[in-house]
Amino acid sequence: MHYKISSENHIFSFTKDNIPVLFVKESDEIEVETLDCFSNQIKSNNDRLESMDWNKVNPATGPIYVEGAKEGDVLEVTIKKIEIANKGVVTTGKDLGVLGDLMEGLYSKVVDLKDGKVIFDEKVSLPIKPMIGVIGVSPKEGNINCGTPGSHGGNMDTILISEGAKLYLPVFVEGALFALGDLHAAMGDGEVGVSGIEVAGSVTVEFRVLKNFKLSNPMVKTKDVTATIASDESLDKAVKIAVHDMAKLFQSFTKLSIEEIATLFSISGNVQISQVVDPLKTVRFSLPNWVLESYGIVF
Amino acid sequence: MHYKISSENHIFSFTKDNIPVLFVKESDEIEVETLDCFSNQIKSNNDRLESMDWNKVNPATGPIYVEGAKEGDVLEVTIKKIEIANKGVVTTGKDLGVLGDLMEGLYSKVVDLKDGKVIFDEKVSLPIKPMIGVIGVSPKEGNINCGTPGSHGGNMDTILISEGAKLYLPVFVEGALFALGDLHAAMGDGEVGVSGIEVAGSVTVEFRVLKNFKLSNPMVKTKDVTATIASDESLDKAVKIAVHDMAKLFQSFTKLSIEEIATLFSISGNVQISQVVDPLKTVRFSLPNWVLESYGIVF
Ligand SMILES: [Ca+2]
Ligand SMILES: [Ca+2]
Ligand SMILES: [Ca+2]
Ligand SMILES: [Ca+2]
Ligand SMILES: [Ca+2]
Repeated sequence: MHYKISSENHIFSFTKDNIPVLFVKESDEIEVETLDCFSNQIKSNNDRLESMDWNKVNPATGPIYVEGAKEGDVLEVTIKKIEIANKGVVTTGKDLGVLGDLMEGLYSKVVDLKDGKVIFDEKVSLPIKPMIGVIGVSPKEGNINCGTPGSHGGNMDTILISEGAKLYLPVFVEGALFALGDLHAAMGDGEVGVSGIEVAGSVTVEFRVLKNFKLSNPMVKTKDVTATIASDESLDKAVKIAVHDMAKLFQSFTKLSIEEIATLFSISGNVQISQVVDPLKTVRFSLPNWVLESYGIVF
Repeated sequence: MHYKISSENHIFSFTKDNIPVLFVKESDEIEVETLDCFSNQIKSNNDRLESMDWNKVNPATGPIYVEGAKEGDVLEVTIKKIEIANKGVVTTGKDLGVLGDLMEGLYSKVVDLKDGKVIFDEKVSLPIKPMIGVIGVSPKEGNINCGTPGSHGGNMDTILISEGAKLYLPVFVEGALFALGDLHAAMGDGEVGVSGIEVAGSVTVEFRVLKNFKLSNPMVKTKDVTATIASDESLDKAVKIAVHDMAKLFQSFTKLSIEEIATLFSISGNVQISQVVDPLKTVRFSLPNWVLESYGIVF
């Protein structure tokens, strides 16, 4: 089946109390329309962040109930397609982002997206590389606002979560209660200014429910690499979690010793930063797919 | 002139008290022979880390006195060529690296380097990508052991410092007192197991002394990117330093506002991890060269 959900159906936090807006099965295809991270409030350079409704930040469209998904399973989300609008907005400001200590007030700029490029200014145009900022499932208990990343996914702002990627999320509640939003037309690792090129759009996804392995935190697989993803107040701690998660995967699928795993990771894996500003920070530990495949790790 | 220095001329810490082993001018070419990070003590799998002389760890060949280099200048080091031996060693162990909490004792493995590959085991061979782990100049005061990274360079373990790259180091003392060592045949970002493929070899460098801009910390330029490099006990703080250093560079070369700089960096720059195990950690903030060139930033 092919479904389409309007961006009117959105949440501002992930929780099991959210009422599903759609019930789907594995291999259904769902087109998810999304607002930008400001609920499309900044349409031109006359719209000011100062006068915006900040209660409407980081909407995620959903939640979607995936039949058969149960606590302890892994939800595989294939990002089949990402389409974006032809205008985006980039923001920064006092106490926001890594350079926020050098600024006064808030700043936003609306930019055109055309011919595959973000038109930043008269000197610089960047290639459009659409990605998903917020994507996740309900936690087991409580609610987590859509601006926060965690074991449930959420605001991970990870550039690998792009068209063609498969995202793996631990399932905490029946049906998973999946939602996504916060598309970016472009973003650098770190998202140091506090935003990417924020843009409305739509994402087509397809689900599979996996029962043959466990995850504590999200993982993403692109055509080239597989990366464990971890978020924490400190980058140092997030690095530990991401690398340990990948080690657990190798220990569950292979007979390699921990010394073999550590040396293999040291020379073939890359610790990478997703974002440092959400304010929990997100890192990933990335290995080439062929390394996993060489040891028979497939899921 | 073309000079060659033997690896017998090595130091274990950067300090102005080191006696120069060579005096060179700008555009002289110097071939610097290097020991591996264990002073070549681990030659086969019969050589044990436990019985090694740990006072001989992280030798750097030098120092070289560069004529004309004065405090406040920038030393540009062009890495013209890196050659490596045909065997390397990779190590890990208890309390070493990100997975050290899961191990007992020390571990090392000697690996063959042939046909452009690191032969890790019967399943995995990785492309050889030679890089320099330790490279730097004397600090203004005191001495910094060669296992530590900092504003003077040192043990930065940054994969971008490879053949063809230009490294920019702040000069703290007359003549700079440059040294390098600790080559790796391969290493992943993070160096999570605590070592790369440690290998002896030689590096051909050439110097230029730049007086037209200031640096507080090292910077590296490859054919694709320019990256500021910062080291700190916490990755979070190192990120701040690296991004602020790049912002200062933009402020000194352009008229862009800090808001323009922050948003440009957020969408076109990448915060990347060099290493998390030295035990000071090293990060870099990397921008495509064409972005700097678009704003007329050339040095
Ligand atoms: Ca976000
Ligand atoms: Ca965003
Ligand atoms: Ca090193
Ligand atoms: Ca080393
Ligand atoms: Ca190291």
